Amino acid sequence: MSEFNAKQLANPGVQELHPYQAGKPIEELERELGIKDIVKLASNENPLGISPKVKAALAAEIEDLARYPDANGYYLKAKIAEQFGVEMNQITLGNGSNDVLELLARTFVSDQHSVIFSQHAFVVYPLVTQAIGARGVAVPAKNYGHDLDAMAAAIDSTTRMIFIANPNNPTGTFLTSAELYAFLQKVPTNVLVVLDEAYYEYVDAAERAPSVSWVAEFPNLIVSRTFSKAYGLAGLRAGHAISHPSVADYMNRIRQPFNMNSLSLKAAEVALDDHDYLAEAVELNKQGMAQLIAFCEQHDLDYIPSRGNFLTIEVGDNAAEIYTKLLHRGVIVRPVAGYELPRHLRVSIGLKEENEVFIQAMQAILAEG
Amino acid sequence: MSEFNAKQLANPGVQELHPYQAGKPIEELERELGIKDIVKLASNENPLGISPKVKAALAAEIEDLARYPDANGYYLKAKIAEQFGVEMNQITLGNGSNDVLELLARTFVSDQHSVIFSQHAFVVYPLVTQAIGARGVAVPAKNYGHDLDAMAAAIDSTTRMIFIANPNNPTGTFLTSAELYAFLQKVPTNVLVVLDEAYYEYVDAAERAPSVSWVAEFPNLIVSRTFSKAYGLAGLRAGHAISHPSVADYMNRIRQPFNMNSLSLKAAEVALDDHDYLAEAVELNKQGMAQLIAFCEQHDLDYIPSRGNFLTIEVGDNAAEIYTKLLHRGVIVRPVAGYELPRHLRVSIGLKEENEVFIQAMQAILAEG
Repeated sequence: MSEFNAKQLANPGVQELHPYQAGKPIEELERELGIKDIVKLASNENPLGISPKVKAALAAEIEDLARYPDANGYYLKAKIAEQFGVEMNQITLGNGSNDVLELLARTFVSDQHSVIFSQHAFVVYPLVTQAIGARGVAVPAKNYGHDLDAMAAAIDSTTRMIFIANPNNPTGTFLTSAELYAFLQKVPTNVLVVLDEAYYEYVDAAERAPSVSWVAEFPNLIVSRTFSKAYGLAGLRAGHAISHPSVADYMNRIRQPFNMNSLSLKAAEVALDDHDYLAEAVELNKQGMAQLIAFCEQHDLDYIPSRGNFLTIEVGDNAAEIYTKLLHRGVIVRPVAGYELPRHLRVSIGLKEENEVFIQAMQAILAEG
Repeated sequence: MSEFNAKQLANPGVQELHPYQAGKPIEELERELGIKDIVKLASNENPLGISPKVKAALAAEIEDLARYPDANGYYLKAKIAEQFGVEMNQITLGNGSNDVLELLARTFVSDQHSVIFSQHAFVVYPLVTQAIGARGVAVPAKNYGHDLDAMAAAIDSTTRMIFIANPNNPTGTFLTSAELYAFLQKVPTNVLVVLDEAYYEYVDAAERAPSVSWVAEFPNLIVSRTFSKAYGLAGLRAGHAISHPSVADYMNRIRQPFNMNSLSLKAAEVALDDHDYLAEAVELNKQGMAQLIAFCEQHDLDYIPSRGNFLTIEVGDNAAEIYTKLLHRGVIVRPVAGYELPRHLRVSIGLKEENEVFIQAMQAILAEG
């Protein structure tokens, strides 16, 4: 192959871009280390596995896959509209919420703009900002979470978009409804606020922000949700944004017409009605969280209090080494040094027995010194 | 909802963008007209339906959908590398080839550049160009197909990318290997040539360009393929690009890590080995093409000779009216006025009996006068 280098042809933002690092897949670790019975607590997946109702619906849907998906996602949008009390023209469907976040940036942000997000916030915000060649403004975190006052103060004439993750990944930190509402009142209408609520369903109902209802008051607010976490559909890629209709209109103009495939459209539609599965997932998460916290407290390990389906634990200066030792014991967790958290590891909440495997492995590693 | 208008916040290219118009889905026509037994010949789908081997593989895969897909698509890339005789680092996976085409534009084209494509060529080329704010240069067609001499002559200092569809959609026109090779020799290395071969498998083996092997000689050549047509996986979204490794490197930096979902990764991998299905699809297409051509000749209707799985027929000035009349008779074809072909309709090759339903409906409409 020739010496040709495409770098000088790539757009400036892309030239220095480092792609998203996904959690290590189980099959990859199997190939690399030749071990079996791996426990993956690395990607904040739903340990229950796919819901039986969704599974049954998918089996019925496989027959028709030679046809293109419905580019308008009519049935899924109708279901979302019904459940969230919005109009169908307020909805933008995404191939996971990653797609929604990227669509937002590509629709409204150019290399003339800046984008505000928090230190330690989800890495897709700086990535989509950089890919466009826009300027990212990372506002220092407060107690590992969003410092909304500092974020509001960071707005200037170049600001076009603000990303807020609530709860935040990878820290699990949480902003109250009152804090968010006060923040929205401060943001000028020509600055779009993207409220990424990927972990919304894990928050106690009494504490959840009525974020979707705020869109009527704040037309510059976009609420992003995913089916990858509590709904258990990470492998199918489904997410959506709820916004003012004119925001959705422009997002949908650059959306790939078949961004969600036929099976993900159907799975998401069915999942929205599967209240039992959702309740079971949330309850399992609550128990697993208590299990991991008990382990941390027993071993005097600090952790960041989390409202998500994961716990980010301060394991110390040798976090990278512990990560590798865990891999060799067949446990995959997530290093977060790339999030400026070099002393932490993020551990997804698994099934009770999976959490126990992690705890046993950690205890053995800690005992080694 | 407030009077807020997001238009002034949208990027210049997006403000005037008109989204891709997909072929009308069967369910949509059912809702609108309340009719059943609809024949859809509108989206160049594979009328065989999904291959039994793929179907069986998907049924086994459904269990694991709460996990994220493999962001690197290891097994699918390994299969593509083996079948096409390339290295895995030359491959970029896409959520359909639409995703591949968009990734190429977003990686290498900015609002400082222009992009060349042919009149009557696939509409995604101007759409992805406009979304970025780049200048599109539509070179007038020759006999409904690409005029490669004129396209080479259109290259100037702003040109960053050239899209070529072979066979072209929606005209079915075809460029020979010799024509393509001579063209590639004329294009400077700093201009990327995207050869979109979505309909490649329908071309007789003896006539197919050895396009993948040309990448070693022309590092600015990118070959795009899809699983949506002859492989019968339109509903699952799977496509890929083969390129010089450094082109793939930068494309993969902005690729959404989970752009292909777990089921499409598996389906594409299995489909590549399902040679019997592919052969059956191609043979069925040949017979259906003969059936439609016989109808055209019998009724003295001009058509554009096609190497794809569709035939674009010149039905006359009342093409829009005929399209609507066909809908009311339960037959969906594709209007192509948006492709500057206002007197034509594009008809996908279906099963023999589906083609016959179209022929009967057309004969009735023509008889009405």
